[in-house]
Amino acid sequence: MRDANNIHIKDVKNLLDKEKNSLPLFSAENLIKIGIEIFRGMNVPLEEASLVSELLVKANLVGQDSHGVIRIAQYVKAIEEGEVKPGAKMKIMHETPSTALVDGGNGFGQVVAKKSMEIVIEKARKNSVSTVCAFNLYHIGRLADYTEMASRCDMIGVAMVNSTKCVAPYGGRERVLSTAPISYAFPTAKEMPFILDMATSACAEGKIRVALHKGEKLPYGYLIDADGNLTDNPEDFYKGGALLPLGGDLGGYKGFGLAMVVEVLSGILSRDGCAYETKKKGNGIFFQAIDIGSFMPVEEFKRKVDDLIRIVKSSKLRPGFNEILIPGELEFRIQQKRLKEGIYVPDKTWEEIKAIAERMNIDLSQVLSHNQR
Amino acid sequence: MRDANNIHIKDVKNLLDKEKNSLPLFSAENLIKIGIEIFRGMNVPLEEASLVSELLVKANLVGQDSHGVIRIAQYVKAIEEGEVKPGAKMKIMHETPSTALVDGGNGFGQVVAKKSMEIVIEKARKNSVSTVCAFNLYHIGRLADYTEMASRCDMIGVAMVNSTKCVAPYGGRERVLSTAPISYAFPTAKEMPFILDMATSACAEGKIRVALHKGEKLPYGYLIDADGNLTDNPEDFYKGGALLPLGGDLGGYKGFGLAMVVEVLSGILSRDGCAYETKKKGNGIFFQAIDIGSFMPVEEFKRKVDDLIRIVKSSKLRPGFNEILIPGELEFRIQQKRLKEGIYVPDKTWEEIKAIAERMNIDLSQVLSHNQR
Repeated sequence: MRDANNIHIKDVKNLLDKEKNSLPLFSAENLIKIGIEIFRGMNVPLEEASLVSELLVKANLVGQDSHGVIRIAQYVKAIEEGEVKPGAKMKIMHETPSTALVDGGNGFGQVVAKKSMEIVIEKARKNSVSTVCAFNLYHIGRLADYTEMASRCDMIGVAMVNSTKCVAPYGGRERVLSTAPISYAFPTAKEMPFILDMATSACAEGKIRVALHKGEKLPYGYLIDADGNLTDNPEDFYKGGALLPLGGDLGGYKGFGLAMVVEVLSGILSRDGCAYETKKKGNGIFFQAIDIGSFMPVEEFKRKVDDLIRIVKSSKLRPGFNEILIPGELEFRIQQKRLKEGIYVPDKTWEEIKAIAERMNIDLSQVLSHNQR
Repeated sequence: MRDANNIHIKDVKNLLDKEKNSLPLFSAENLIKIGIEIFRGMNVPLEEASLVSELLVKANLVGQDSHGVIRIAQYVKAIEEGEVKPGAKMKIMHETPSTALVDGGNGFGQVVAKKSMEIVIEKARKNSVSTVCAFNLYHIGRLADYTEMASRCDMIGVAMVNSTKCVAPYGGRERVLSTAPISYAFPTAKEMPFILDMATSACAEGKIRVALHKGEKLPYGYLIDADGNLTDNPEDFYKGGALLPLGGDLGGYKGFGLAMVVEVLSGILSRDGCAYETKKKGNGIFFQAIDIGSFMPVEEFKRKVDDLIRIVKSSKLRPGFNEILIPGELEFRIQQKRLKEGIYVPDKTWEEIKAIAERMNIDLSQVLSHNQR
């Protein structure tokens, strides 16, 4: 999600400047290799190990480090504890020409999600519009990775997932809903693709974890403590507090409403279950693809989306803003930078990865090319 | 939209109490009759006059007076000026088994929208999921009226429309986007139906107009003035200011992202045009219906939505809140009250209606039953 990494659009210049002073420790290529070796060491089939590693590193590339290689240790643990089953058999439980309900067989979220998006794209190709839901899978990572698959096929991609509870309803103080992200992707002609990927909560959970690890406060408006009072202390979230829905006191009922929509579509319709249920573990999936060609020539659509993007970006600025960024643009820029300069991996994450590699007798120096970390 | 009438969920009790002191001047039945007579006087076919009047009054009933009979004068003017063509011929420009692109023929928005939702429901019945876009129509009113049609057919209803520009992008100060409302409706078993209908802007335009007419200030966070500074003065909106996207300074890029999604789906894919285009007049339509039975037994779906609603509503409250209301609940309660006690029509609106009736030689006393206004 756009906000998973504690980034504000206003801060993009600061962020890019700040990173210039950090050592670019890893190339994306090397991080992917490390991931693959580790997952292979856990008996994950090569194809799955590659996909999961690529998507984790992609999250790092676009600046969403909380969805990146920091998760390797968590995934290894999940495999060990049987929470995720590498090589799981997916099964289509029910199907029509334009819908499918997929049982993920407790597999990697990325694997089930990619396959589900392939199914929904294929169905939209034949039937103009399609919906696929999936249940029984682990975390899928960034929604943008899947909706982008649709937009690359000249389709409109839609994705919603729910997960475990951490968001209070508008007016409530208990965790009942999930951060319930939504993603839409549209192809463009010359502009970069439009990819919205946003939590319907005030911020994503990763943002709180990052603030906690850095010992930083959060702005008022993201969190409430266990008594339901606004707080700027990320610790309060882990002491019975909750995230607030998008919109704050003025408009929080809208973020709350959207979160309920995501809950119904990706939790109930998918059969994966709602955030509030104690059995809830991974993501429930709701995917859609819409064939643009069924409405208008694709090139015309792309040109018009380009026009919209240009008009929006060229409109006059508010005081305090340097620029208007369209959804996906920040991630795109960070990716360009990190592809060139490398990905910074915090020491704690690197130590975790090294420890796992040692335990598996993987010689990381053999894995890394060019003698480079 | 939920916020079209300057209502906050927190204020529902106050609102209902306050209304007890107003004279309940009109029954819904009488207001509908008045609307029908006036539109019939403008040579609007009976079926269209009935539908438009019913939906305007429905807006009053659910508390969204800015979408109610206050619009009769505007619609009459629009007919006179040729902006809307009663009895217009709709045409399906392009069609697949699960999609349609509808040319509204410059007709009443309500008429085109109802027909478009009927088409999308019929297509979803046969093909599980469907999408219909429509262009060249006037304003359609509340989206909830159409998504509710789908939920009554045991389907999931989705609606998005764009309109003329009044919202600034996140970071911008110019009007480029529309309030870009979104609606989702789900059927329930014993709970009232879930109907989300929300602007993706900080508030709906009607809220500003209401504040202006009452001489009241608005909370900071809704509006910027022509220089892009936050303002609480509704007049600033009409002096070159703009509405802000949902989410405020912390999360406004999310409301902005959603508004762009609505712009692309209901403005570009529909061919009706984007908010920023000078030709833009009415609403562009993007409708979807999803057949629940293609995924699971409908009764199971409804029971599970009921469960979610109950869990959400019964969760512990934050200080300052009396209750958690689910999307559509506020409107439902106001409707129950106004059906019983009547609809209050402000003097200015009533004078406008009387003047139109006189001009058309319609004797309103003949129209009203029971000698009651």
